[in-house]
Amino acid sequence: MSDAPRTARTRSWWGWGTEAGRLTAAETADLVTRVAGLLPDHDLTDHAPPDPRALGVPEPRVAPPASLAGLCSTDPVDRLAHARGKAFRDVVRNLQGDTAHVPDLVVRPRTEQDVVDVLDWCTSSGTPVVPYGGGSSVVGGVEPRFEGPAVTLDMARLDRVLEVDPVSRAARVQAGAYGPALEDQLRPHGLTLRHFPQSFEFSTLGGWLATRAGGHFATLATHIDDLTESMRVVSPAGVGESRRLPGSGAGPSPDRMFLGSEGALGVITEAWMRLQQRPAWQRTATTTFASYDAAVAASRAIAQAGLYPANCRLLDPAEAMINAGTAVGGGLLIIAFESADHPVDAWLDRALELVTDHGGEVLATRDRSAGDPGHGDDDASRAWRSAFIRMPYQRDELARRSMIVETFETACTWDAFPTFHAAVTAAAQEAIAKVCGGQGVVTCRFTHVYPDGPAPYYGVYAGGRWGSTRAQWDEIKAAVSAAIVDHDGTITHHHAVGRDHRPGYDAQRPEPFAAALRAAKAALDPAGILNPGVLVSPR
Amino acid sequence: MSDAPRTARTRSWWGWGTEAGRLTAAETADLVTRVAGLLPDHDLTDHAPPDPRALGVPEPRVAPPASLAGLCSTDPVDRLAHARGKAFRDVVRNLQGDTAHVPDLVVRPRTEQDVVDVLDWCTSSGTPVVPYGGGSSVVGGVEPRFEGPAVTLDMARLDRVLEVDPVSRAARVQAGAYGPALEDQLRPHGLTLRHFPQSFEFSTLGGWLATRAGGHFATLATHIDDLTESMRVVSPAGVGESRRLPGSGAGPSPDRMFLGSEGALGVITEAWMRLQQRPAWQRTATTTFASYDAAVAASRAIAQAGLYPANCRLLDPAEAMINAGTAVGGGLLIIAFESADHPVDAWLDRALELVTDHGGEVLATRDRSAGDPGHGDDDASRAWRSAFIRMPYQRDELARRSMIVETFETACTWDAFPTFHAAVTAAAQEAIAKVCGGQGVVTCRFTHVYPDGPAPYYGVYAGGRWGSTRAQWDEIKAAVSAAIVDHDGTITHHHAVGRDHRPGYDAQRPEPFAAALRAAKAALDPAGILNPGVLVSPR
Repeated sequence: MSDAPRTARTRSWWGWGTEAGRLTAAETADLVTRVAGLLPDHDLTDHAPPDPRALGVPEPRVAPPASLAGLCSTDPVDRLAHARGKAFRDVVRNLQGDTAHVPDLVVRPRTEQDVVDVLDWCTSSGTPVVPYGGGSSVVGGVEPRFEGPAVTLDMARLDRVLEVDPVSRAARVQAGAYGPALEDQLRPHGLTLRHFPQSFEFSTLGGWLATRAGGHFATLATHIDDLTESMRVVSPAGVGESRRLPGSGAGPSPDRMFLGSEGALGVITEAWMRLQQRPAWQRTATTTFASYDAAVAASRAIAQAGLYPANCRLLDPAEAMINAGTAVGGGLLIIAFESADHPVDAWLDRALELVTDHGGEVLATRDRSAGDPGHGDDDASRAWRSAFIRMPYQRDELARRSMIVETFETACTWDAFPTFHAAVTAAAQEAIAKVCGGQGVVTCRFTHVYPDGPAPYYGVYAGGRWGSTRAQWDEIKAAVSAAIVDHDGTITHHHAVGRDHRPGYDAQRPEPFAAALRAAKAALDPAGILNPGVLVSPR
Repeated sequence: MSDAPRTARTRSWWGWGTEAGRLTAAETADLVTRVAGLLPDHDLTDHAPPDPRALGVPEPRVAPPASLAGLCSTDPVDRLAHARGKAFRDVVRNLQGDTAHVPDLVVRPRTEQDVVDVLDWCTSSGTPVVPYGGGSSVVGGVEPRFEGPAVTLDMARLDRVLEVDPVSRAARVQAGAYGPALEDQLRPHGLTLRHFPQSFEFSTLGGWLATRAGGHFATLATHIDDLTESMRVVSPAGVGESRRLPGSGAGPSPDRMFLGSEGALGVITEAWMRLQQRPAWQRTATTTFASYDAAVAASRAIAQAGLYPANCRLLDPAEAMINAGTAVGGGLLIIAFESADHPVDAWLDRALELVTDHGGEVLATRDRSAGDPGHGDDDASRAWRSAFIRMPYQRDELARRSMIVETFETACTWDAFPTFHAAVTAAAQEAIAKVCGGQGVVTCRFTHVYPDGPAPYYGVYAGGRWGSTRAQWDEIKAAVSAAIVDHDGTITHHHAVGRDHRPGYDAQRPEPFAAALRAAKAALDPAGILNPGVLVSPR
């Protein structure tokens, strides 16, 4: 059986990213001091991760055929590292040495034919198979949370950009390419996908497509869907490839059936993706508002103005304080425009007019196009971006110290937002009060804005009790999920459904569509081996 | 049995639009003179439409239950007028008095429950039902082209805007609303859908949704899909309604399964549509190029610049001459920007820089924002727009005079376009030469442009022989369809698949997706009554 590839060896088996990427001792000390200041009664004892080799990971219950053995890993730590995603509840379970639902094999195909062969074997043997990109799911999407054996299909070796079309600005890319490797291969062509989810470093194109990932752009191409020109998918019923088309009206979109299929309908092996030239003009403004309602109204005005900023991120006061170190009365709204073609001054100027029309103030602007160091103090926007990348590592350190640190995200229409936001925030705070005795903060930011509504992203920070933090979070999550579904939101805007969001998803989707999806699943995956429990199979 | 509503009584049973909208005698004489000049040998004898009451439309083979009888029309002319769409081949068959495949009943539901009741009756009796919006299909989408009885479900009575949300800028609209009625109901709210297909006056929201219609916008919201917030669909398996959401990542999009389902999966009864404020600033430029390649390159540059013009219509020299009365060496490129929020000068200025960078010349600009009569001569753009609306009426007059006048449309990537365009044009011209003895013209314009490719729309004008023009066109159409499919285009960018495009559609769609769609159809429509022959049922 083969060794794991290099990336797998440097990745943390229990937490986010790489061991090398973890907070330094000094950073950790600083973080702990800040939390101690906010929650003086909280027990911040550090619970280090266990030695994974001492956890007694069960022996594999299934053996691959000889023809596939060379692609398979049975290493206990490799399997443990593939047992779940990177949600707070995943990290906590790892820290506690939980070995439930560890896959029996990790298979790493080298070719699409390998994928076909693995699905053939799994179909004939009735072995469930979990397609796996970077494993950054925060919704239980890669966890074989079911009885019996499981195979995890890690696509990381299919990581090449196979073809670049500079005229149409598109590239054919294998699904296992991680964000950095993908961009590295595009850079010599002067092109970029510009899909930068927070997980960018540790997630793959195939994962983005299968989960309808949200990326860089606050408007227009908010999901990876819009950057997708065509896809190639291996299902047990056969291999399909959609045509490269800039647009089509020939029946329901084939790609839209597989975008968001979360490994339940097939394995995405490659896709033609729409690219862009690297931006030459970038202007950012940081603006503040005395009232949150005014900040929301300004965000809406910008979203409805047809200006299409790359960034239109509204932080509420708690988010601004915790993650941008900035005190604001009502909100911090960061607006950015970028272009490879033209200066964006007219665009930003008009957006800032809308800001001032709504009572906002411009705190700082920065012009990265001309190397302008900017005028005013935009530490707030820089601090936020830096914190954004480091957040999951901070989360890990706090999880070790019995803190509950997690996010949830959604979208709703603008007319619904005030009531929605109040209800969801209240549900979170009531649940925190109930399960944590009231020690907690709920923050909100808009990650994406649409003409008809925002995509709010909430953060929860609360002091838990060691040994109970997963259960405490689950209770908070159940409360906020119910509030989201009851108040006309979506159970997920860009984190996918996985296993964790099934109740909310089942409640919100139209039943005839569910029936159609079940039928499609039965046609494509008659043995029901593909990621059981996700989307359409029994919970 | 009820009378047909007023709209149905004023509509032409055999051709486009209304009898009142037909060309005047003077317009017809002018048109005929121009054609005679171009094709001096062509026999321009006028073949007037027959008296529909004298055609011997067969008696209905099926009777509705008493509970539905009040919704049903058995009037022969009403049924004849619903027997087919408005393609050239439909008009010709009407002119020739062809009474094949006339529906036995036209049912006009007044409520969604009526739709449910009709589907229940059709399911229990095994009677095929053809959902019908405005009947403007040009692909055989509304024609009961199968053996046995058929019911046409005309949605025209469900034509209300039920709710307007001015905050999120959206409205809940019944599917049977025709374009003008829809806009009339939105106007008092200062809002507009701005979906203006050529068929606007004679097509409905439900038809647009079911066929993924292309509309006003050359970029961004090119199809009605992008303007759709949620939909309500009645299928034999039940009624489903998706949630109003500005964006979501919860599994494959439910709406995207029904957008483009062409009445084969369910009947769309209403939808929440995304609206806009009426534009206050509109600027248009008419530009010319000495070479078509340069004009295409400029179109591509504008499509890839992130400027998002509302209009970016490239007419080739033949299209510019025939429909805009303008002689150009390489192409006529009409570019327009519009906004309800801000002046669009920066946008148009940059687009015109791209035009001149590619060797183009600005013929005229017009500023409708300020009531500016414009400088330069933009008769070309005005002439084109006026001709555009009247084209189907002209087509009808020419069809009466043995001319073959029809269009086909597609999309492909920019890298493929030169080869694609040459092959498709050659296929059309070869077919015209073969079936018409060479008397014909093929024109091309871009209706929509994307960063990764254009949507070319071709016109064919050729002299046929009375009695054979349908068969002649069918032969030309088969040749161009084969060329489109063989050269990496889509069989339709926004005219839908219907029955006419089935061979091309079947060739281009991935087989696993077809299997999934068949399964979805079987789940939603177990008796197979919904628009048989469309998308997934036997051809």
